[in-house]
Amino acid sequence: MRIANNNGRLALVSGDHILDVETASGGAFVADPMAAFAQWSELQGWASGIDIVGHPDASALAEAKLAAVSPRPRQVIGIGLNYADHAAESGLPLPEKPVVFTKFSSSVAGPDVDVVLPGNTVDWEAELVVVIGAGGRHIAAADARSRIAGYTVGQDLSERTIQWQDQPPQFSIGKSFENFAPIGPIVVTLDEFVDASVLSISATIVAVDGSETRVQDGSTDQLVFSVEQLVERLSAIVELLPGDLIFTGTPPGVGAGRDPKRFLVDGETLITEIEGIGRITQRFIAGQSS
Amino acid sequence: MRIANNNGRLALVSGDHILDVETASGGAFVADPMAAFAQWSELQGWASGIDIVGHPDASALAEAKLAAVSPRPRQVIGIGLNYADHAAESGLPLPEKPVVFTKFSSSVAGPDVDVVLPGNTVDWEAELVVVIGAGGRHIAAADARSRIAGYTVGQDLSERTIQWQDQPPQFSIGKSFENFAPIGPIVVTLDEFVDASVLSISATIVAVDGSETRVQDGSTDQLVFSVEQLVERLSAIVELLPGDLIFTGTPPGVGAGRDPKRFLVDGETLITEIEGIGRITQRFIAGQSS
Repeated sequence: MRIANNNGRLALVSGDHILDVETASGGAFVADPMAAFAQWSELQGWASGIDIVGHPDASALAEAKLAAVSPRPRQVIGIGLNYADHAAESGLPLPEKPVVFTKFSSSVAGPDVDVVLPGNTVDWEAELVVVIGAGGRHIAAADARSRIAGYTVGQDLSERTIQWQDQPPQFSIGKSFENFAPIGPIVVTLDEFVDASVLSISATIVAVDGSETRVQDGSTDQLVFSVEQLVERLSAIVELLPGDLIFTGTPPGVGAGRDPKRFLVDGETLITEIEGIGRITQRFIAGQSS
Repeated sequence: MRIANNNGRLALVSGDHILDVETASGGAFVADPMAAFAQWSELQGWASGIDIVGHPDASALAEAKLAAVSPRPRQVIGIGLNYADHAAESGLPLPEKPVVFTKFSSSVAGPDVDVVLPGNTVDWEAELVVVIGAGGRHIAAADARSRIAGYTVGQDLSERTIQWQDQPPQFSIGKSFENFAPIGPIVVTLDEFVDASVLSISATIVAVDGSETRVQDGSTDQLVFSVEQLVERLSAIVELLPGDLIFTGTPPGVGAGRDPKRFLVDGETLITEIEGIGRITQRFIAGQSS
């Protein structure tokens, strides 16, 4: 199943087509995407019998206004240093347990947004994002997949100066500016992947002169803590709630790890892509320093 | 105005009486407490004309089942080291900007709960909690009060070992176990205080043998960053949303700052009180270490 948020309304996606769920279900499912995560298995059961492409109410995906697939999560859980090579480039030891922070929920945005730069050290982090379905507490790794709605693409944008300003540094606030947690374009259920544990993930910067540079090029099989391990470890402490997001960490290639360091500037575009899900795009605009 | 969550239903409180808002308003306001924060000024306008004590639908406050005043906040913002003496006892410098972390939203609990101890280094932090009303972005300190619903009492419970285990230490996860963010018993609007910037705040432990020890005894006039400054600084980065909670930091006297250190154990009770609002109480029960 492939799910989108079309202008605030839950929708099914297949190929180039999109179908409004409330309309097609005759109101059996409501339009609010947040309601879908709490009744994910019912939704998936119903959707499995729907011919989206041939449905009379289907429309062109290209004309949809895609918004954040989980627009109002109560918890956005960020994982730091979850690729061995990224920990190395950050000059930090490989963690024995997942390093956990938050991106405050108001930073969540749709897949294709403009981002005002709040400073001159804004950095990129391409990430696989887990969208929680049923959720719960004390979920064993072996049961994790049944509590997950699916995967989406995310960018864990960070203002590095603010991320590191506290003593000891608390990462969350520097990662929570407006539109600093873009996600999308769709949520893909795990059964849609040939192997959901091995997905290529990349970030590409389009410079002001139009030149493209692939700055991150990794695979989720390099995760220090797998998605299933993260769900087990996090849910031992935090109840995972329907629609919650887990940003699972980023592969090597961030700007702060380069020599010289390289950050996003006015007029640049960032493209983040994960195999089998799709891509999200942010355009960066100069702002006032905070 | 004094607001409570009575078994999931928004209620007005006056003296020993409590009045269901949906019933008394004839449905003009819905029962869900989360809906109240987005229409706080309308609620306050209506409530100002209500005689709660004399209302035919009023009942005894003592019989109410008080739950979390904001049961499903999208953002719970914690401020560290916001009393000068507490920073000193933690061995950390006075921050130049507020140190910001989260207590994940699923840790929010009502005013009178049992807490299972996940380890043997669980510590207390009595805190004034700001409940956001209208909220917004880029709120000036001078406008902060108009965006705040009111104040409540909170405990920022922390498992210190887990709080400090990451490199660099990320405070959030060790502060987010089940029931680690109890709040209540009511939200009090700022006009109800003689001086909302000077409130006495205390924590008292009732030991297993029944002896009581006042472990924290402070005043909110010792805040490094005032409530108004916090709203201004936070909202410069994070959009404050209706029902969001800001845990404003704790005065001196936490267990980790004592010599020898002293943490909560099975069978103890913790009472946290703020002048003009009331008290919350947790009982601690032995659990498995995580």
